[in-house]
Amino acid sequence: METTAYVRSLCEAACAAKAPLAAASTKVKNAVLTSIAALLVEHTPEIIAANADDLAHAEENGVPAPMLDRLKLDGKRIASIADSLRELVLLEDPIGSGSRVTRPNGLIIEHIRVPLGVVAIIYEARPNVTVDAAALCIKTGNACILRGGKEAIATNRALTALMRQALEENRLPADGVCLIDNTTRESSTALMKMRGLVDLLVPRGGAGLIRSVVENATVPVIETGAGNCHLYVDATADLPMAVNVAINAKMSRPSVCNAIETLLVHEDMAAKFLPMFRDALNGRALEIRGDEKVCEILTDAHPAAESDWETEYDDYILAVKVVSGVDEAIAHINRYNTKHSECIMTRSMENAARFQREIDAAAVYVNASTRFTDGGEFGFGAELGISTQKLHARGPMGLDALTTGKYLITGDGQVR
Amino acid sequence: METTAYVRSLCEAACAAKAPLAAASTKVKNAVLTSIAALLVEHTPEIIAANADDLAHAEENGVPAPMLDRLKLDGKRIASIADSLRELVLLEDPIGSGSRVTRPNGLIIEHIRVPLGVVAIIYEARPNVTVDAAALCIKTGNACILRGGKEAIATNRALTALMRQALEENRLPADGVCLIDNTTRESSTALMKMRGLVDLLVPRGGAGLIRSVVENATVPVIETGAGNCHLYVDATADLPMAVNVAINAKMSRPSVCNAIETLLVHEDMAAKFLPMFRDALNGRALEIRGDEKVCEILTDAHPAAESDWETEYDDYILAVKVVSGVDEAIAHINRYNTKHSECIMTRSMENAARFQREIDAAAVYVNASTRFTDGGEFGFGAELGISTQKLHARGPMGLDALTTGKYLITGDGQVR
Repeated sequence: METTAYVRSLCEAACAAKAPLAAASTKVKNAVLTSIAALLVEHTPEIIAANADDLAHAEENGVPAPMLDRLKLDGKRIASIADSLRELVLLEDPIGSGSRVTRPNGLIIEHIRVPLGVVAIIYEARPNVTVDAAALCIKTGNACILRGGKEAIATNRALTALMRQALEENRLPADGVCLIDNTTRESSTALMKMRGLVDLLVPRGGAGLIRSVVENATVPVIETGAGNCHLYVDATADLPMAVNVAINAKMSRPSVCNAIETLLVHEDMAAKFLPMFRDALNGRALEIRGDEKVCEILTDAHPAAESDWETEYDDYILAVKVVSGVDEAIAHINRYNTKHSECIMTRSMENAARFQREIDAAAVYVNASTRFTDGGEFGFGAELGISTQKLHARGPMGLDALTTGKYLITGDGQVR
Repeated sequence: METTAYVRSLCEAACAAKAPLAAASTKVKNAVLTSIAALLVEHTPEIIAANADDLAHAEENGVPAPMLDRLKLDGKRIASIADSLRELVLLEDPIGSGSRVTRPNGLIIEHIRVPLGVVAIIYEARPNVTVDAAALCIKTGNACILRGGKEAIATNRALTALMRQALEENRLPADGVCLIDNTTRESSTALMKMRGLVDLLVPRGGAGLIRSVVENATVPVIETGAGNCHLYVDATADLPMAVNVAINAKMSRPSVCNAIETLLVHEDMAAKFLPMFRDALNGRALEIRGDEKVCEILTDAHPAAESDWETEYDDYILAVKVVSGVDEAIAHINRYNTKHSECIMTRSMENAARFQREIDAAAVYVNASTRFTDGGEFGFGAELGISTQKLHARGPMGLDALTTGKYLITGDGQVR
């Protein structure tokens, strides 16, 4: 079948599954999640075999090592995915919750949370996203359409088959979870244009994917993942703590969106802090691109260009700038950041409060690593992505982000 | 100044007002609203004089009577605008409210409501929108940019000057309320493209404006106002009540988005209901476009074409169709509606529940007129428009729709 027609047929199948999923009770939806967890554990050998196929192809095609690592599933990782499903069971179901008022004219107005309908996700070769995203959708009564990366297609087929089986075992339509089994660029572009069939599209991936979605999508989209994050070390910071947090925020996993890209240091302690920071690297490679003052203190730093303040390196590179205080730090961050995660290290309550109030970002930290911006770390069980926009959802997207509101009005003949 | 540069300068001025507005206490923001109410009453003669200029120009230019009526302000209407400001004072301020959890690792995660930043509204010649929209923005600590219709420009200048005065009297920047004093199409298009400066654009107006915004906007948008609304008269309906509600939903103000465009009637009582409905029109002109069965019963009805089920007439025209029951009614509505407001007239609890559950719309009514879908009627004090999308806000947009979330995380050196 031609790609667009194929994608449309999947979207229509997902649409047909909307009503029974929306009507499913919390008990039934939790039973599906529990079934999936059991099936994943039970079928671990088959999943690992499918994953081995993917890994072999990926290696043949020269896929880089960090991506291979994200693609790889083993017994421990599968067990951990199953665990997170069981955690999701314990979370409250937002669907059907809400408020009720009676107006002076006797009209009863209820405002309740309902599923969005059909949620589509375009993502890279990370099999855990396949289960996390589908599970969040199931828990909120949404049908989902998964368009994963081509490197993970065999794994995704295996995982999706088990999730569809779990839906059927609980008398829900298998099409509640649909996998686009065509990983060409065309299938992705076709999905972006299924206006009227897709209620929300979440792109999870690199800047190229996000840009393509923003340019091409006619369906509603939530942008995720751009993370030009900063850490500002204030004059009053606990310096050993600041060093530790800065090292963690940069070095623990530089490829992810909640890692920092720029370090801002108060001029009063830059000469003390920066050498402490460099020493704490303990020989690990990190390219530092600094302004003039930084390069005076750290003689092995490279001079930073204007573009360095704008760049999300996702790599072992860090831009460093000396600032005159919290005012300059806030101004720099609000100018260059992508509204993701920002941190101040300080012992001043006043500066902490100002920073949290005035920084425009989804997550603003005082004295903790930006690496915590994550649905799991926030207690959401899983996440569909990290929204960097202000409308609908901002920050890690958990269950609530997959719902919308509906007003139910009941009267006895009121007219206006 | 060239139009784009002019619009950009206003957006920049509004941006500069963001921080003090966001930091303003509820008490100060309420004082601004109270000041505006007092100034409107005090300066009623000047407002009416400016409005008279607008009306004179509009009449010269052959503006149709219903638009002239919406443009017109008199003492009573101004007093009513002032009253709605005082009502808004009484509503709870959502800004700063939120929740707090402490994670097992000791991180404190607060999730609080914060202003969006700069909110822009493009609307037609309705001066009450000028004050309603600005007041909702002030109450939520947002700066706003108003781009009203050219017919109301003198009135909008007068109203905006008073609102800016009220901001200054309360030591807030006047640029919290900016009026685009250039009502060319170019100013509107320029505003749609102020990405990075405008956090939300709400178009309020006809289908042409909405389409232009969807096609041209690069700033975040909430679509409003498309209203192909239906009323379904079930077999068990209280027929006199159904007649009364249907007449109100169609005839009280056909030009607005919450008026019905299609009436669906259960086949078991169509022969009884339809003549009752026609008689209740009491001679008022209403063109009925019916399917075959309707045309058999109402011999003066015109035959409906497929396009009639899709059309928002906003006029004294009603499409009417006989259906076999609640299933067909739900299927018809979900196929043709614009997700705005839908109504069932019934005495069956089962059918009422099914209709409210399965209809995909912002507001689903049982036994009451769709005309109630309105921020004021819902108790929101005012509204910025009626969202017909599912993301961020759905239905009448009040204070909550003008906020976004922000996570504030406080630790003592936690790393991941």
